[in-house]
Amino acid sequence: MRNISRAEVKNASLPQLKKMCDELREEIFRTVSACGGHLASNLGAVELTLALHRAFDFPRDKLVFDVGHQCYTHKLLSGRAALFHTLRKEGGISGFPKREESPYDCYGTGHAGTAISAALGLAKARDLKGEEGEIVAVVGDGSFNNGLIYEALNSLKILDTRVLIVLNDNGMSISPTVGGSHEILEEMKGEAIPSEDVRLFERFGLKYMGVYNGNDLEELLPALDAAKEALKSGSVLLHVVTKKGLGYAFSENAPAETHGMSPHAGPRTEYAQALGEELIRLAERDERIVAVTAAMTDSLGLRPFFEKFPARAFDVGICEEHASVLCAAMAAGGMRPYYAVYSTFLQRSFDEIVHDVCGQDLPVTFCVDRAGITGEDGETHQGVFDLSFLAPIPNLTVAIPKDIGEFRAMIRASASFEGPLVIRYPRQGTEGEVLPLEMGTFEVLHSTISDIAVLAAGERCLDLARRLLERAEKAGFSFTLVNARFLKPLDARLLSSLGQRYIVTLEDNALIGGLGDAVARFYRGEGRTVRSFGYADAFIPHGECASLAKKYGLDGEEIFAVLREFHARG
Amino acid sequence: MRNISRAEVKNASLPQLKKMCDELREEIFRTVSACGGHLASNLGAVELTLALHRAFDFPRDKLVFDVGHQCYTHKLLSGRAALFHTLRKEGGISGFPKREESPYDCYGTGHAGTAISAALGLAKARDLKGEEGEIVAVVGDGSFNNGLIYEALNSLKILDTRVLIVLNDNGMSISPTVGGSHEILEEMKGEAIPSEDVRLFERFGLKYMGVYNGNDLEELLPALDAAKEALKSGSVLLHVVTKKGLGYAFSENAPAETHGMSPHAGPRTEYAQALGEELIRLAERDERIVAVTAAMTDSLGLRPFFEKFPARAFDVGICEEHASVLCAAMAAGGMRPYYAVYSTFLQRSFDEIVHDVCGQDLPVTFCVDRAGITGEDGETHQGVFDLSFLAPIPNLTVAIPKDIGEFRAMIRASASFEGPLVIRYPRQGTEGEVLPLEMGTFEVLHSTISDIAVLAAGERCLDLARRLLERAEKAGFSFTLVNARFLKPLDARLLSSLGQRYIVTLEDNALIGGLGDAVARFYRGEGRTVRSFGYADAFIPHGECASLAKKYGLDGEEIFAVLREFHARG
Repeated sequence: MRNISRAEVKNASLPQLKKMCDELREEIFRTVSACGGHLASNLGAVELTLALHRAFDFPRDKLVFDVGHQCYTHKLLSGRAALFHTLRKEGGISGFPKREESPYDCYGTGHAGTAISAALGLAKARDLKGEEGEIVAVVGDGSFNNGLIYEALNSLKILDTRVLIVLNDNGMSISPTVGGSHEILEEMKGEAIPSEDVRLFERFGLKYMGVYNGNDLEELLPALDAAKEALKSGSVLLHVVTKKGLGYAFSENAPAETHGMSPHAGPRTEYAQALGEELIRLAERDERIVAVTAAMTDSLGLRPFFEKFPARAFDVGICEEHASVLCAAMAAGGMRPYYAVYSTFLQRSFDEIVHDVCGQDLPVTFCVDRAGITGEDGETHQGVFDLSFLAPIPNLTVAIPKDIGEFRAMIRASASFEGPLVIRYPRQGTEGEVLPLEMGTFEVLHSTISDIAVLAAGERCLDLARRLLERAEKAGFSFTLVNARFLKPLDARLLSSLGQRYIVTLEDNALIGGLGDAVARFYRGEGRTVRSFGYADAFIPHGECASLAKKYGLDGEEIFAVLREFHARG
Repeated sequence: MRNISRAEVKNASLPQLKKMCDELREEIFRTVSACGGHLASNLGAVELTLALHRAFDFPRDKLVFDVGHQCYTHKLLSGRAALFHTLRKEGGISGFPKREESPYDCYGTGHAGTAISAALGLAKARDLKGEEGEIVAVVGDGSFNNGLIYEALNSLKILDTRVLIVLNDNGMSISPTVGGSHEILEEMKGEAIPSEDVRLFERFGLKYMGVYNGNDLEELLPALDAAKEALKSGSVLLHVVTKKGLGYAFSENAPAETHGMSPHAGPRTEYAQALGEELIRLAERDERIVAVTAAMTDSLGLRPFFEKFPARAFDVGICEEHASVLCAAMAAGGMRPYYAVYSTFLQRSFDEIVHDVCGQDLPVTFCVDRAGITGEDGETHQGVFDLSFLAPIPNLTVAIPKDIGEFRAMIRASASFEGPLVIRYPRQGTEGEVLPLEMGTFEVLHSTISDIAVLAAGERCLDLARRLLERAEKAGFSFTLVNARFLKPLDARLLSSLGQRYIVTLEDNALIGGLGDAVARFYRGEGRTVRSFGYADAFIPHGECASLAKKYGLDGEEIFAVLREFHARG
């Protein structure tokens, strides 16, 4: 779309501003239709973001978005309109704020709950350096469930600075927002705002201003001017209500389904669907089965479970730490909890996995979706660290299915497994046979007389390995191919029995700390050469999955060259 | 001390109960004097714990302690009096609740903020299984700062169950409690409780009862009976005020200093003291230096810095996640933040280290104290995972000083270092020379013509390596000894230049994912045999540091045998 200059935003009349909103909304809709991305939240935040650009002077003033998925209007208004058609494409505009991309992106985000802490840090730095400028944090009501937000609010008086927090309340946190804090916010949207709610914010050091219609510029512009004025004497919380998906009827009516949109067409097979089916199957037979999610019921495939077993299904909001402790304690109380979560968000539970679940050796199963390279969301959403940070945790079993059939088998086996278990899998895959499976065992997929064995974990790597095998056989050599479906424990018996001198490992994870290191440690460098392939020691940006995988470490050409070299060495 | 039976607690008169409190207090004081441990918090919680044992029927009812360091009276009243003299000794009673130790310890803790989530999980399991019994969580006011507590409170209505939360408010969270939530609690202790504070808890689904004197049995016993009655119709928050250190004048007056007591006598040299000195030195020259702690100002050595630079020092309460994001944002704003934290509590910041600090490549220095085996506090406090979970994080430099002198050099070098940095060190050590140091370089401590090189990281391992070298030379062979003072980046030039065929690594960390794996990955099993020593894949219980280190993987005999074997192989 055309570039809208700062002067234009500052000088426009109200009708002109409304017209800009239409343009912005159209551009967002068009781009997300082509590139995928976050539709509903961006459609809902158009007026709010435009009004912020009118009221403040970015980048001298600083704007921090919580999660950051609602930043499209901000990008369009900060000199990136001409590039916006490259949204989420390799080398193009990121779907999230990113410091390297623009001085207007003062703080990068992707996970929930960081914005108030970030705003406070930027504000404190400003104060200490004697600089000017205001700091604005835009936080959704979903993030207000998150413990990190509360920790930041608790810090406001300690830090003795000033920030403007815009609470963008659309009642959703991918799934509808839930819980006690949500009820307080809902109450505030009633006829009269309860004075104690206002005082609550005051006690934390915030002047409360609200509730305003965040989609109505006539209401919003003077509200922001007033907030800016109030900010001179201390921190302000401005409570605005917006409609997720506004301007696109289907999205308005289905905000969860249109939260994240994929550009891909055609039928896809998702691990998430299998998870829902298998958990229902287990739960029908075993009353101890319960399912927990942190605000992602649909995208993790749990909707059918929630509908069928409402008393045994818990969406606790964007509270990944609490979700893990809750599961640990339910297990201590004799239940069999399944916590489904994206790989990147599992990082929030690291201490709880160590301290609560594995430290007490409790039978909690973590269903870790979106593992490996996830593509278009970029750095903050790649699931490439889980094998590494899980590997050192005692008592934990870590499983990596080769396809959806094996994933089903693992879920079934988990029902009688006594201990903490992680099953990690990508978003999409192929079905496959559901064969009985023993925990901690590898599977030989192709056995041959050769000095080379390839150990590959997960669907992406096994696909790659099969293609390499085909190519090798065309080139006149072969290798033994093993489905290394457990990072932990390794299949010691199988590893010891392998006669091959050259071992090549492939994993859809950072090379540091993953399967390759585990296999190398097993052999201790004695008698075998282990060459491992996984992702480079770098944050992997947005792009197309296969292209990124190749670029960052799983390059078939490079691996084939190593295989050929090993074959030549004999 | 003598065993006090449940019947005795249930049937005692008030004077008899008071006498029991004296006995309990005396036993706690005597035992902590001999074994070390948490004095002040336990002295403060004697009456409260006794009253809970009188009001409830444990272990049918269940008692969860937040953090758990205040559980001594509970242990004395649940059949462990005769063993209490073994407190914190290897094979003896743990200083924290532990499921394996007793059915009265229904949920293990050690880190802050988990108790309400845990109580909710136990309560939900009870409901789903149709069982009876009440669940009681005892939470200090310090933990009420923590985001996890808020996430659990937010979940109360979602989970639709009932728990009793006893808020044990002593105004301390090792350091005095700080922040907005603390001010609300303080206000409630005034003449009249503000009705909006009460309604606040009600909005989250809690009936508020308080404030009671938790050291006065006459007030406490009827309050608990009333709470138990109220619990029949829903969750209750019982707010009691106790005096940390009660009954021991020195501890009453110095609760932070007597929070954790060590049995060791004599002068000790602490890395923490050096940290305080060096940060002051830097801050005098560089106005960008700021220091952050999560409620542990004294034990991390930051008191002098806080006194000298109050405007640049921030205690944000027990909010490890927020502390890390705050640092990231201050760095984004041009400051140079130092966040000091214990290794085990750094686990809480894992996602923020990835997502906020390293993801944006910001110059935050993490000063990670109590790394390695820490001894008497046991499983939940050992700092043996940090090298493993930090290793896969891109952009991060990880330094491991060989002594306090080198630690000082690393802090000095950090001032001009552009990027995320972790320096990890044990509690105590020896001074040593402060020599200029280049990031990412190893140091050859002993060079000799031999087929063996030992790469050791950190003071414990270098001490061990020096003893092994002495022993080897007496036995007629030798090895090159390298101070492997960076896990990341490795000193590639030095590693490549080593001519030795046998490489032995030693680290005060879990073997999985640490230095040994990094070195093995570097050599790729080509031409060299790497044998690594570190801690076994197990949670390491409480005990004496040197004894635990030997037992769990750094056994001089075993390592010497390997060295001798390598020497023999030639």
